[in-house]
Amino acid sequence: MVTIKMIADSLGISTSTVSKALNDATDISAELRQSVLEKAVEMGYTTKSSRKKVNRKLAVLIKNMAYGTQKDFGYNIVLGFRQAAMNRDWNVDVVDVTKDLMLTEKYDTFLLKHGFSGAFCLGFTLRDPWMAQFQNSQMATVLLDNFVSENPRVACIGTENTEGMEYVIRHLVTLHHRRIAFFCGEQHSRVSQDRLDAFERAMMSQGLTVHRDMVLFGDYLAPEVRNLLLPAFEKKATAIVCANDIIAAHVIDECQRYGLRVPEDISVIGFDDIPLASITEPPLTTIRQNRKNIGMLALTVLSELCDRVPIALVQIRPQLIIRESTAAANEKGYTLKVPTN
Amino acid sequence: MVTIKMIADSLGISTSTVSKALNDATDISAELRQSVLEKAVEMGYTTKSSRKKVNRKLAVLIKNMAYGTQKDFGYNIVLGFRQAAMNRDWNVDVVDVTKDLMLTEKYDTFLLKHGFSGAFCLGFTLRDPWMAQFQNSQMATVLLDNFVSENPRVACIGTENTEGMEYVIRHLVTLHHRRIAFFCGEQHSRVSQDRLDAFERAMMSQGLTVHRDMVLFGDYLAPEVRNLLLPAFEKKATAIVCANDIIAAHVIDECQRYGLRVPEDISVIGFDDIPLASITEPPLTTIRQNRKNIGMLALTVLSELCDRVPIALVQIRPQLIIRESTAAANEKGYTLKVPTN
Repeated sequence: MVTIKMIADSLGISTSTVSKALNDATDISAELRQSVLEKAVEMGYTTKSSRKKVNRKLAVLIKNMAYGTQKDFGYNIVLGFRQAAMNRDWNVDVVDVTKDLMLTEKYDTFLLKHGFSGAFCLGFTLRDPWMAQFQNSQMATVLLDNFVSENPRVACIGTENTEGMEYVIRHLVTLHHRRIAFFCGEQHSRVSQDRLDAFERAMMSQGLTVHRDMVLFGDYLAPEVRNLLLPAFEKKATAIVCANDIIAAHVIDECQRYGLRVPEDISVIGFDDIPLASITEPPLTTIRQNRKNIGMLALTVLSELCDRVPIALVQIRPQLIIRESTAAANEKGYTLKVPTN
Repeated sequence: MVTIKMIADSLGISTSTVSKALNDATDISAELRQSVLEKAVEMGYTTKSSRKKVNRKLAVLIKNMAYGTQKDFGYNIVLGFRQAAMNRDWNVDVVDVTKDLMLTEKYDTFLLKHGFSGAFCLGFTLRDPWMAQFQNSQMATVLLDNFVSENPRVACIGTENTEGMEYVIRHLVTLHHRRIAFFCGEQHSRVSQDRLDAFERAMMSQGLTVHRDMVLFGDYLAPEVRNLLLPAFEKKATAIVCANDIIAAHVIDECQRYGLRVPEDISVIGFDDIPLASITEPPLTTIRQNRKNIGMLALTVLSELCDRVPIALVQIRPQLIIRESTAAANEKGYTLKVPTN
């Protein structure tokens, strides 16, 4: 285990200075403190507080996700996490993470500086600077819907995609759909790949064929679906399954731009049941994650990681929410309008 | 919630009789007790003891897995589970489950009769009568390496297959293997399917091609590999990845029956690191699950299920164990001997 003495020796300073830096004392300079923290992180130092079991202080780090009011996606997740932490008398700080913060401070240094034993990270994408750092982080970390491989300090929590997709395809088959397209997220994202595998598996288990040109890839968060759906339209897809609700909302717009009515001409189905899903026109049929349970479980998983149990992945059961974006398959086919905008 | 009164009314007997049956009183007949228990299970009754948080009594139900001594696969799993239960002052009974028991008693009835709040089930296969019952069980249940879909009372615990397979393929690529076969388990088992998906993904991520006739299926527990490897031999596979160690042990035998030396002519690699893996000839390179961690985690997961958190799946990080069944790829090819036995 890395000790304060080892950090001091490696920097050629006294142990008391290192101790001051780690304990946020006021009588050393900010620069010196920062270099001690960075060296500590580099050497894999973990604070006593991260090893003790009482009075742990944990962070919920939120990037790009609303959580302030009950209608926000993150609200129940944070609530579940806080409640579970309260049961153990642990403290939770919720921190909004900006791109600036990620560029100026390393992830591990940030946690160490603020005395966090671990963090639950929400809303991070592959493009965020800390994502690459999670790969080698020494800090107990739980990621929502992201996956980092081969790091025993970092676990992923999410929804069981295979089962969710089974519900989706079974629902569509009940409505007599057979030509079903899939609009995936980024091709190299783990969640996209998992949901694509799940889609293929669910189609196969219903005896349906996955057409290669009916599987479409796009940006996960700001999907540019414009004209991307044409191959699916040409194959006369009667339903488009989307890897998340944001994509689904854009797909609905795009269908309408080509003069197709949802769900009369074509059904569209999402994944996640974010609050947006119930206010699209028409409201989205989608797969719900129980967000309060996810928050509570995240605390349990973080606690196990603090105790050095190398959890990789935890998934909860999904639930099919049927709204108005799906209907009986349109067997008569459809004619595309030339989009004007 | 189902009450004792509801069970009594449905059977047309008094609540005190139902209460006696549920509390294992001696002054009612075994037949009456059994019919009360079965009605209670049918109606979805859960005992008070399964809802309370202190003094829970849990079962470890073991089918077809040795756990008595330290060298046995199940030993550390049971130990981890017991230790984690002890920390919460919960009681654990370890029960060997026979086919006879499964045929004479329903799973839920068995747990209810013995006052168990939930169970951790090890070593069950698709052919075991209770496997179908897990699908609709009302009891908090954690399965090792089996998966039951769509039941919020049942969770699966196991190892992260994708990552394990990444280690396997990367190890083989380092040894210059390119023509790699995969010997899967039963085609319809969830674990087989997961490990096959993981194999394909890992091959792709290394830029390698998966040849359809190099993917072989067989029985998981008593693999009849005899002559099944011929397509892989004809394609000049230099390595055979197996979905578990038992298959791998049989594959080594089969290679040797055809006059091939392992690893000089062909490398063989397993999955699980059961104790057998270190005593095959040559000892198996394989993927290890941390079994004590699995046991400890199973207790945590069972506790969450008792609290009605619908966990589907928990996976821990795998570890590559390099032994002597893998070596540099044999680029010169090999000649098969006609097997004599």
